[in-house]
Amino acid sequence: MSARSCWKWPGTGALAEALTLHEDPRSGNCYKIKLTAALLGLPLATRVYDITRGETRTPEFLATVNANGRIPVLQIGEASGARFLPESNAACWYLAHGSALIPAERFEQADMLRWMFFEQYNHEPNVATLRFWLHFVGEANLSAEQRAQMMPKRIAGCAALRLMDSHLAANPFFCGEAATLADIALFAYTHVAEEGGFALRDYPHILSWIARVRALPGFIPMI
Amino acid sequence: MSARSCWKWPGTGALAEALTLHEDPRSGNCYKIKLTAALLGLPLATRVYDITRGETRTPEFLATVNANGRIPVLQIGEASGARFLPESNAACWYLAHGSALIPAERFEQADMLRWMFFEQYNHEPNVATLRFWLHFVGEANLSAEQRAQMMPKRIAGCAALRLMDSHLAANPFFCGEAATLADIALFAYTHVAEEGGFALRDYPHILSWIARVRALPGFIPMI
Repeated sequence: MSARSCWKWPGTGALAEALTLHEDPRSGNCYKIKLTAALLGLPLATRVYDITRGETRTPEFLATVNANGRIPVLQIGEASGARFLPESNAACWYLAHGSALIPAERFEQADMLRWMFFEQYNHEPNVATLRFWLHFVGEANLSAEQRAQMMPKRIAGCAALRLMDSHLAANPFFCGEAATLADIALFAYTHVAEEGGFALRDYPHILSWIARVRALPGFIPMI
Repeated sequence: MSARSCWKWPGTGALAEALTLHEDPRSGNCYKIKLTAALLGLPLATRVYDITRGETRTPEFLATVNANGRIPVLQIGEASGARFLPESNAACWYLAHGSALIPAERFEQADMLRWMFFEQYNHEPNVATLRFWLHFVGEANLSAEQRAQMMPKRIAGCAALRLMDSHLAANPFFCGEAATLADIALFAYTHVAEEGGFALRDYPHILSWIARVRALPGFIPMI
């Protein structure tokens, strides 16, 4: 039993029901949820799918786990009483409810969500999609439509990283002095952005922040 | 003084500081915040920008209001003490903090955020972008890159609307019996989706839900 596995962030609420993550370990969106559970000391079982083989588009998956055909999905409880929560950042919110990973103060809480919505709108569709295309699909296998999207996504991804770097020049974490879900959400695809062709050496404050996130008690790596 | 202007949703916290919305009235993302404030009975001043003229990309705007060069931004307070909150759904969260527009129960709260993240990831980039291109930019003025994106966005937008319609077949509002921020977030661009070329008659449960949202006490129209 390491010191890390005994750590719990202050205020973590006990959960009576079993937690299961429907995931693909290559997905940063799935990693967010595992990292949140690890930081909070919450046990989390996993069920693995291969998204490149369409395993989240089967009739059974669509009918029971997520009609949107996507992972991650956090399953709370088991059998007929199970509830399913899609959307990575919503699942992190569920796990961290009442803990120090979510600021209690009204503005700070909204400001944390601001970075999490930024992540899903400005960061993930660019940084994560280019990583998926280049690192997993392979450039030679991209469609003409995907090729046409590479440069706009490169530009938008660099803009997102530049904005993050500028913010982190003045703040150790996205919402100030302590790590929150905003850091977990943005860390997931940023720390592997080089797999999508982004040069992280261009963003020195992001590199320092990555080291700070890696040093959090309870941290687990992506793979 | 109409009955509507006296209505307040239960639990709306008093706000000591002045609220100002930096907005473009054609934007559904801005409308979300105005609708939330109206339902809560919160006074909200507005400052209008024309996004098609680059008025949110000026050095002054980037330095003081939002380094991301986007609206809406909710300004809380005035002069040197002002704080700025970008991202429409985060601004709605700030306004509705503690009110009945945000469920207090752990799963329900996360499930509401699930629909709000879905809105920003699966709905807005497709339904809102096609509306902006077709209704405001004009099809004749689109770049080749934008034209190439029209069909993928049409397909993804229809998938988002179909998922919403299916969910609303069994639920009067997105999180059950009562309206929440999830309804406000998804209403903004859905009720004007025909301006983006989407046929709402194909989604009968969405049409019924639009009528229910319009009937909420305190409701204000977009324009």
